[in-house]
Amino acid sequence: MADAAVRTKKPATSKRTPAGGAPTAAHSAQEASDPRIDVAAVTDLLLGTWAHTRRESREMIKDPAFWRIDGQPMPEHRERVLSQLHLLVEHGGSRRAFPKEYGGGEDNGANLAGFEELVLADPSLQIKSGVQWGLFGSAVYQLGTKKHWDQWLPGIIDLSLPGAFAMTETGHGSDVAAIGTTATYDPETQEFVIHTPFRGAYKDYLGNAALHGKAATVFAQLITGGVNYGVHCFFVPIRDDEGGMLPGVTSQDDGVKGGLNGIDNGRLAFDHVRVPRFNLLDRYGQVDEDGTYSSEIPSPGRRFFTMLGALVQGRVSLDGASTTGAALAEYIAITYAGQRRQFDSGAGTDEVVLLDYGKHQRRLLPLLAQTYAQFFSHDELLKKFDGVFSGRNDTPEEREDLETLAAALKPLSTWNAMDTIQECREACGGSGFLAENRFVGLHQDLDVFVTFEGDNNILLQLVGKRLLNDYAKQFKGADAATLARFAARQAAGKVFHGAGLRQLGQAVADLGSTARSVEFGLREDQQHALLAGRVEQMIADVAAALRPAGKLSPAEAAALFNAHQAELIEAARAHGELLQWEAFTDGVHRIDDEGTKLVLTWLRDLFGLHLVEKHLAWHLINGRLSTQRAASVSRYIDRLVARLRPHAQDLVDGFGFEPEHVRAPIASGAEQQRQDEAREHYRALAASGDAPVSEKSLKKKK
Amino acid sequence: MADAAVRTKKPATSKRTPAGGAPTAAHSAQEASDPRIDVAAVTDLLLGTWAHTRRESREMIKDPAFWRIDGQPMPEHRERVLSQLHLLVEHGGSRRAFPKEYGGGEDNGANLAGFEELVLADPSLQIKSGVQWGLFGSAVYQLGTKKHWDQWLPGIIDLSLPGAFAMTETGHGSDVAAIGTTATYDPETQEFVIHTPFRGAYKDYLGNAALHGKAATVFAQLITGGVNYGVHCFFVPIRDDEGGMLPGVTSQDDGVKGGLNGIDNGRLAFDHVRVPRFNLLDRYGQVDEDGTYSSEIPSPGRRFFTMLGALVQGRVSLDGASTTGAALAEYIAITYAGQRRQFDSGAGTDEVVLLDYGKHQRRLLPLLAQTYAQFFSHDELLKKFDGVFSGRNDTPEEREDLETLAAALKPLSTWNAMDTIQECREACGGSGFLAENRFVGLHQDLDVFVTFEGDNNILLQLVGKRLLNDYAKQFKGADAATLARFAARQAAGKVFHGAGLRQLGQAVADLGSTARSVEFGLREDQQHALLAGRVEQMIADVAAALRPAGKLSPAEAAALFNAHQAELIEAARAHGELLQWEAFTDGVHRIDDEGTKLVLTWLRDLFGLHLVEKHLAWHLINGRLSTQRAASVSRYIDRLVARLRPHAQDLVDGFGFEPEHVRAPIASGAEQQRQDEAREHYRALAASGDAPVSEKSLKKKK
Repeated sequence: MADAAVRTKKPATSKRTPAGGAPTAAHSAQEASDPRIDVAAVTDLLLGTWAHTRRESREMIKDPAFWRIDGQPMPEHRERVLSQLHLLVEHGGSRRAFPKEYGGGEDNGANLAGFEELVLADPSLQIKSGVQWGLFGSAVYQLGTKKHWDQWLPGIIDLSLPGAFAMTETGHGSDVAAIGTTATYDPETQEFVIHTPFRGAYKDYLGNAALHGKAATVFAQLITGGVNYGVHCFFVPIRDDEGGMLPGVTSQDDGVKGGLNGIDNGRLAFDHVRVPRFNLLDRYGQVDEDGTYSSEIPSPGRRFFTMLGALVQGRVSLDGASTTGAALAEYIAITYAGQRRQFDSGAGTDEVVLLDYGKHQRRLLPLLAQTYAQFFSHDELLKKFDGVFSGRNDTPEEREDLETLAAALKPLSTWNAMDTIQECREACGGSGFLAENRFVGLHQDLDVFVTFEGDNNILLQLVGKRLLNDYAKQFKGADAATLARFAARQAAGKVFHGAGLRQLGQAVADLGSTARSVEFGLREDQQHALLAGRVEQMIADVAAALRPAGKLSPAEAAALFNAHQAELIEAARAHGELLQWEAFTDGVHRIDDEGTKLVLTWLRDLFGLHLVEKHLAWHLINGRLSTQRAASVSRYIDRLVARLRPHAQDLVDGFGFEPEHVRAPIASGAEQQRQDEAREHYRALAASGDAPVSEKSLKKKK
Repeated sequence: MADAAVRTKKPATSKRTPAGGAPTAAHSAQEASDPRIDVAAVTDLLLGTWAHTRRESREMIKDPAFWRIDGQPMPEHRERVLSQLHLLVEHGGSRRAFPKEYGGGEDNGANLAGFEELVLADPSLQIKSGVQWGLFGSAVYQLGTKKHWDQWLPGIIDLSLPGAFAMTETGHGSDVAAIGTTATYDPETQEFVIHTPFRGAYKDYLGNAALHGKAATVFAQLITGGVNYGVHCFFVPIRDDEGGMLPGVTSQDDGVKGGLNGIDNGRLAFDHVRVPRFNLLDRYGQVDEDGTYSSEIPSPGRRFFTMLGALVQGRVSLDGASTTGAALAEYIAITYAGQRRQFDSGAGTDEVVLLDYGKHQRRLLPLLAQTYAQFFSHDELLKKFDGVFSGRNDTPEEREDLETLAAALKPLSTWNAMDTIQECREACGGSGFLAENRFVGLHQDLDVFVTFEGDNNILLQLVGKRLLNDYAKQFKGADAATLARFAARQAAGKVFHGAGLRQLGQAVADLGSTARSVEFGLREDQQHALLAGRVEQMIADVAAALRPAGKLSPAEAAALFNAHQAELIEAARAHGELLQWEAFTDGVHRIDDEGTKLVLTWLRDLFGLHLVEKHLAWHLINGRLSTQRAASVSRYIDRLVARLRPHAQDLVDGFGFEPEHVRAPIASGAEQQRQDEAREHYRALAASGDAPVSEKSLKKKK
C-alpha cells in the first residue's frame, strides 16, 4: 500500500520519466502496477525498537550547526565539534544512559540509538560523543562505584569535565592485556603511581587527549605488594582549567588522520603521576588502605574480560552507525541512478537511466539488501544490549552472548559500510568524488571503524574461538561409541562430498526446464540450510584440523592454530552472515502488509543468494550445490535485481532520511532538472527548424 | 645473490630478531638459508625500460618542496602544487614528450615513466602535471598542427600558459560523443562561436579551471553550414594575465574533493564566445574559410575514436602511477608487519611479529604478487605506447591494440591500488589511519583514478566488445559445415562440463597422496590454461547469448545486451588478468639469477593461483577443475605465502624506494626501536629483582 504523503514529499525524485524503448520496463512500482511497499511502515520497521529516539535525534540534527563542513581545516573542525557536544548537552542528548539520580534516563538502548543517528550530521560528532559519554563516561559508570559517580558523573554529563579513554597504547592495540602502563600502590601515601615506562606504553589515538580532555580513565597494570593484579582502570586528571598539562603528564597530538578530523586524538604519557586510592575505579577489584587486593571475581582472566565486556557498547554503536552511514550512501547513489542518464541504448531512444543498466543493478542492489539485513540484525543486537545493561537479563551467559554477537556483527557492518560507500561513490562517477555529495567524507570518517573498538579480524577470531568451544562442548563427556559414530558420519560426509553423490541427487532434481527450476531449491529454507550448513561445516573442519594440538608442544600447537587462522576467521564471518540473514528473515515474517512482505522477501532472497554466490566455490567443493544449481544462483540474482529495480527508490525512501540528512546536491533532483532543461533545449531547437543535421544523415542522403 | 650494499642501507629493517618458538620459522631469507633474490637486479627489472628516467624523477622528488603536506588547507595546497609545477619545469620535467624543435625530448615512454613517479611526492602534483602537459598540452600537440605548436607549445612547456582540458560535461561523463557544447562556424567573421546551451553542458571537473588556467582545449560539436560534424577540439582563451575571466566565460569552483585537493578543479561555461578559425585543432578535421568541412577520415565514428585515441596516454600513465602507489603502500605495511609484534602465540615466547600470522600473510602477500604483475604488464603497455607515439609502429592495428590494452589494464591496476592501499592501512591498525603513515592520503588521492580518464566499467565494456568482435571474426565467411562443427563442439563441451566427465579425469589423476599432489596440475602451463580458457569460454558464452540479437528489434536487442552486460565486463576483467599474468611470466623467464628466478616464480604462482581462487566457482561450474583440485588451490596458496614470507622484505625492498619516498614513520624502524626499548625495560626490571610477580603465578603457588 503506497503512502501518498511520503511520496509527495519528494517531487523531484518521484517525477520519473518512462523510458520508452529503454532496456528495462518500469522505473517505479507505480508504473509497473507491481506490489508496492508501504514506505512509512518500512521506515518504522527499520528504525526499530527505539524509533522514537532515532526520530528525536534526526530532528535535532536538522540544525546546520551540527553538520560537517567539508574541507574545514583541522583546528577549526575540532573546535566546532566541541561546540556541537555542548549543543548536544543542551538538547539532553548526553544523559540518556546515566542513572536517574544524576539526571539520566537509564535507557541504554535509546541512548545508543540516539547517538548512532549523529553519523548523519558529522561522524566526528558521533565519535567524539562516544569518547566522552560512551567510553570515558562509561568507564566511570560501569567500572566505578557510587562514590565515583557522585564525584564525576555530573561533570561528565554536562561536559564541564571532558575526558579521554586511555586504554590503547602505541605498542599494543587490540591486545589490552599486554599494556605497559603501571599503577603501583604506595601504602605510605595511599596513592597509586601511574607511570609510562617506555615509549611503546604511551596511550595513543585517544580522542580528547590532544586538546580538550581534563581527565582520563587510564588502564594500567595494578601492582600492589609486589604483585601485578592485571589491567584496571584509574581516573587521572590531566589538565588544569586553563588547559595546561598537570605535572608529570605529557600530551602529543596525533595530527591529521584519514578522517574524523573533528576529534583531537593524541597520546598521553605519565611520569610517576600520583592519584589518590579513591581514583581506582573499583567495581571489579579493590585495594584497601594497606594495599591488600580483593575482587569478587577470583580468576584474573575472567575479571579482565568482565571489565572489558562492560565497555561493549562502543562496538554495538558502531554496528548501528555504520549501517546508517551505508544507508545514506545508498539513498544518494540510488536516487541519482534513477535520474541520471548516460549513453543511449542503441535502441534509438532517450539515453538510459543508470539504474536500468544490468551492471548498475548488480553493483548497487545487493548492497542495499545487505544494509536492510543489518538494520534488522542491529536492532536484535541493541535489544540484547539493552536487556543486559538494564539488568533485566544480566546473566553471565547473556553477557557472553552479547559480546559474541557484537564481535560478530561489528566487523561485517563496518566493512560493508566501507565497501558500500566506495561502490556508491564510484557509481556516481566524478560527481561522487566531490565532497558535497557526501560519499568521500563518509568513507574517510568511517574508515577507522574497521580497526578501532577491536580490530575486525581480531574480533572475528574471538567469535571463531567461541564457536570452536561451543562445538567442542557437544562432545564433552561423550562416550567412545558416540565419538566413533560422529567420526564415521564426518568421514562419510567427506566421501559423499568428494565423489559428488549429493550433487548427483541435485542434478537429477534439476533435470527439468532450467529456466523454471532456477528458483527451485534456493528459497528461504534452502538459503538457511546453505548458510547454516556452511558455518557448521567450517567450524567442524577447523576443529578437526586442530584436534592434534593437544598432543603437541605449545610452539607446535601455536603453529598449527596459525595455519588455520584465516579459515577460523572465515568461519566466524559466515556465522555473522547467518545471523544477519536470520534477523532479516525474522523481520520479514513480522510484516503484515502483503506488498511490503513480498518485496522485502525478494530483497531478503537477494541478500541470501548474494551470500551464497560470494562463497559459491565453497558450496561446490563441499558438495552443497550441484554445478547446475550453482550456475542458477547467479541467474536467480539477475532476476531478483531486475524484479527489485522498480522498488529501488521506495526501498531507499524507506530509510526515512529528510533533505537535511541527505544534503547531497546529486540526490536533490538537480540532475533531473538539468536533464529536463537539456531535453527542452533540443526539443525547442528541433521545433525551430534551426537544428543542424548530423554528418551521418548527410552521408546517407548522398 | 644478495646485494650487500642495498641491504645495509636499511639497518632498521634488516635488524630482525629471530622469534624463538614463534609460529613460523625464519623471518628472512638470510636466516632461512633459502635462495635469495638479488634486490638490486629486481629493482632494475621493476623499473623497466625507462628505469633511467624513473631514477631521475625519484632523485628530483627527494626535495621536500615536492612533498604533500597532510592537512594543508585546500587554497594553500593548490598554490603549493602550482609552484611545484614551476619547479618541475626548472628541472626539465615538462618537455620530455614534446618535439625537439620546441626544446623537447620526443621521448614518449620516458615522459610517462617520469611523470608516474611523481605519485610518490604528491598525487596532486602528478595529476596537475598530467592536466597541463598530458591533456591540455597533448590536445594541442596531438590534435593540432604545426601552426598551433608554434603558437602555444612554448608557453605550455614553460607553464607561462597553464590550461584546462575541457572535455567532460556535467551531463556527460564518459560519453563524450553526446556532449552539448557547440562550436558553430561563422563564415562572416571566420570565427567559431563556442557555446554552452544548458547547465548540463557545463564543462566539469577540469583541473586548472577554477583558478590557474589561462586557456582551455574545449571539445564541442563542430557545426558548419548547418551540419554537425561531431566532436572536435578548440583552443579557447579563458582568463587574462591578471586572472580575470574573459568575456562570455564563466568559471565555478568544484570545491573540496575526496582527494587531489592540490588541484583547482572547476566548471567552465561559454556564452557565445568567439575564437578565430585558426583555433580549431585541425589535425583530423579542417574547416576552410567559407565553412567547408574536410577530413582525411571520412567515417565520423572512426574520426571521433581517432581523436580520442590520440589522448590515450592519460590511461597509460594511471596504470603506472597506481602500480607505484600500491607498491609504496605495500612497502610500508610489509616493513611494519615484519617489525610490529602483537599478542603472544600461546607458546610462551615473545609476542608474534604480524607477518608471521597466517591471516596477515594471506591478506598482504597476494596483493604484493598482484603489484609485481602490474609492474611487468605496465612496462609492456608503455613500450607499446612508445612504439605507436614515436611513429615506429604507428599502424591502425597497433593503435587499436594499444587502446584495448590500456582499457584492459587501467581498470585493474586502479582498482587494485584502492584495495591494496586499504588493506595495508587496515593491516597497520590505528597507526595506519594517521596521515603521516601515507595510506589514507594515497587512498584519497588515487580514488578518482577508477572513474576518470574513462570509467573503469565502461573501459572494460569496450574491451569486452573488442573481444566479442575478434571472436566473431573467426566465423566470418565460415561455411555451414564449419559452424555446425563449432556448435557441436560447444554443445559437447557443455555436456562434458555439466556431467563432470572432465572432473572425473582429474579426480582419477588426483587419487595419490593429496599433500604431494597439491602443486600438481597448478603449475605455469595449467595456470595459463585456466586463465586463458576462462576468457575464451566467457566470451564464447556471451557471444552465444547475444546471437539472437540480429533478429530482434533495436529495443529488444539492447535489452538482451544489457542482460549480459555484467558478464561481458567480467570477461574483459578476466582478459586483463590474463595479460598481467602473461607479462609477469615473460618477465620471470628473462631472469638469469637462479635465486631471483625461483622466488619470483613462486610469486608469479601466487598471483596465478590467487586469480584462480578468486574465480574458483567459475572453474568448478565450467568443469575446468575437479572439486579435489579446486580444494587444493587454497592449500597451495597457503604453502606459497609461507614460502614467500622470508622473502617479503626483500621483495618490497626491490621497489627501490628511498626514505624520502617512503616518509612513513611506521616504516622507519621506529617500531623496532620502541620494542627494543620495551624489551630492555623488562629485562632490566627482571634483573633488578623488583619486577612484580603475576597474580596467576601467585595463585599457582598457593
